[in-house]
Amino acid sequence: MIKLDIKPLDAQVMAAARQRQNELLKPAGSLGELEELSIQIAGITGKVKNKISKKIHFLFGSDHGIYDEGVSASPQYFTKILMQLYASGNGGAINELCKNSGVELKIFDLGVKNLSEFPSVDSNHKFMNEGTRNFLRERAMDRETAERVINFGIDLVKEAKGENFNIIGAGEVGMGNTSPAAACIMAALGSRDENLVGRGGGLTDEAFAKKKKVIISALNHHSLNKNDALEILSCVGGLDIAAMTGIFLGAAAYRVPVVVDGVISIAAALLAYKISPLSRDFMIASHKSLEPAYSAAAEELKLKPFLNLNMRLGEGSGCPLAMQIIDDALAIMNGMKTFNEINLESEYRKEIF
Amino acid sequence: MIKLDIKPLDAQVMAAARQRQNELLKPAGSLGELEELSIQIAGITGKVKNKISKKIHFLFGSDHGIYDEGVSASPQYFTKILMQLYASGNGGAINELCKNSGVELKIFDLGVKNLSEFPSVDSNHKFMNEGTRNFLRERAMDRETAERVINFGIDLVKEAKGENFNIIGAGEVGMGNTSPAAACIMAALGSRDENLVGRGGGLTDEAFAKKKKVIISALNHHSLNKNDALEILSCVGGLDIAAMTGIFLGAAAYRVPVVVDGVISIAAALLAYKISPLSRDFMIASHKSLEPAYSAAAEELKLKPFLNLNMRLGEGSGCPLAMQIIDDALAIMNGMKTFNEINLESEYRKEIF
Repeated sequence: MIKLDIKPLDAQVMAAARQRQNELLKPAGSLGELEELSIQIAGITGKVKNKISKKIHFLFGSDHGIYDEGVSASPQYFTKILMQLYASGNGGAINELCKNSGVELKIFDLGVKNLSEFPSVDSNHKFMNEGTRNFLRERAMDRETAERVINFGIDLVKEAKGENFNIIGAGEVGMGNTSPAAACIMAALGSRDENLVGRGGGLTDEAFAKKKKVIISALNHHSLNKNDALEILSCVGGLDIAAMTGIFLGAAAYRVPVVVDGVISIAAALLAYKISPLSRDFMIASHKSLEPAYSAAAEELKLKPFLNLNMRLGEGSGCPLAMQIIDDALAIMNGMKTFNEINLESEYRKEIF
Repeated sequence: MIKLDIKPLDAQVMAAARQRQNELLKPAGSLGELEELSIQIAGITGKVKNKISKKIHFLFGSDHGIYDEGVSASPQYFTKILMQLYASGNGGAINELCKNSGVELKIFDLGVKNLSEFPSVDSNHKFMNEGTRNFLRERAMDRETAERVINFGIDLVKEAKGENFNIIGAGEVGMGNTSPAAACIMAALGSRDENLVGRGGGLTDEAFAKKKKVIISALNHHSLNKNDALEILSCVGGLDIAAMTGIFLGAAAYRVPVVVDGVISIAAALLAYKISPLSRDFMIASHKSLEPAYSAAAEELKLKPFLNLNMRLGEGSGCPLAMQIIDDALAIMNGMKTFNEINLESEYRKEIF
């Protein structure tokens, strides 16, 4: 059972935060999304002024049974190779992006085939040794496993909160994982539109056509209720998506802002939203993924990505990038002065802006 | 006379940079604009790997004679009030954004009415004590002044290069300055489309209609040659736009990447491009301004802003934001490993990505 106590954003503090933004020495609204980010975070923490002092990024590795249907451009053992690279602490995109902006990276092997143990990788939560099952033929994972992985994600946020991290990112690695992501999003939206399926890492035309067919067939096979997120995860999800669903729910329960990355991340965000609609208000979109299912999910969630970098890597690579801009948004709220604070004569104030 | 020696980007180094990006452990192109930024900067500096160790932002304050036509939502003395705020080192948006990401801020009074001297503000280059003239009725500044201000901007980059700054931003403050910006862009594009005029800081419908009329009338009055950037600057420009035109030209001459902010900044970028088309290749767009003339200029320059924050503040506020993402792009190039570097067996390499 997923036990959650999620309370809404603090509307009173948000109103105070908006008022302060309107009193800062600029035309009201002229800092656009920077203002909105600072107001959202005020609603999350219950304080008008906030600081990001500790940032954490969770990276989940897992293999996917649907790989066997030929839906990935890369060989499956590449999940293992990349995990080995991340484990070394250097050389992977997410290693370098996290280091470059002071984000602590925690790596988990949830179910990567043939991966050895590394001191820097948590392998105590290998929920399925060989990764998920092929969801074209059977459930990707038991319903009970999906639940356990979600709860694991929630607990990670609880721990992070206890260690005073005040912003969270999450990402994944696992060859073929844009297929479960698209399947989860399409199931949660009640859609069978094959145009929501994207090319992922870079498929040939032939493999791309195959991928669409596989996903539509799987959705027809499982005939899912679009509001049963746990069933969707269990039938067509992945261990990575389940863990991130837990991260998004945990962020809401423990009131920590959480950054959404690309299509796999937003699939988890959408499932978290289905489990608890309030969780949406604790999410911050980062970059606009090129995968079509991303846009459909972002629209449903009313999330507005502010980075337009044509990225499609995964690993949660958009999270450390976005955290810097979010930090800037807080610097504005904390450091800018109001009309009152510079003692501007009141007859002037009426005229300005 | 504007003396410039601008050489193209180094195509050979860019090819090597692109090759390295393609060999890094990710699907080629999957880091999108981050890859392109690192390749562009390689072409600027002549080195595949680059680091941003010192960042500088130039802020130009100036008043605008066109203010008298009622084209601004704020009283003109607010230019002075904001300059006083910036001079204090705290409380202005640009102060806080620069401090938050380690950017040195240099402030210049090019022609702000009634501004006292401050130790933190360069007032030795007050080209016009009362700001520009009303360009609906006469030239905003003499052609010779426009030239001097451009050369001043070029010299600032020369100095910055000498002090080992390796990325440059520029911004402005001056009530009414979206009017000369729109006029410069429309003149340089040979357009009389009043839909290119935006609301700036936030005009009433009535004042907005007035602003459009003023700009179209001024363009008709001066009947400018769209390829004579100096004449455009002199007739309908501003001291801030002229200085930034110099910054963009200087960045190209001294081979330092330079970040473009919003509509006023891109007006200068477009004029720099008209003076030397090669200068465009040294520019990096930051955020997508809401002003319609911004998009028209960005299209002409083929610049792709990667921040979508609905900002319309000015001050060059997009520059310190974007510099962080640019720095991340370089971290990828410098820190990510290639297939060779992890000694991946060659029979595997063929299969991957």
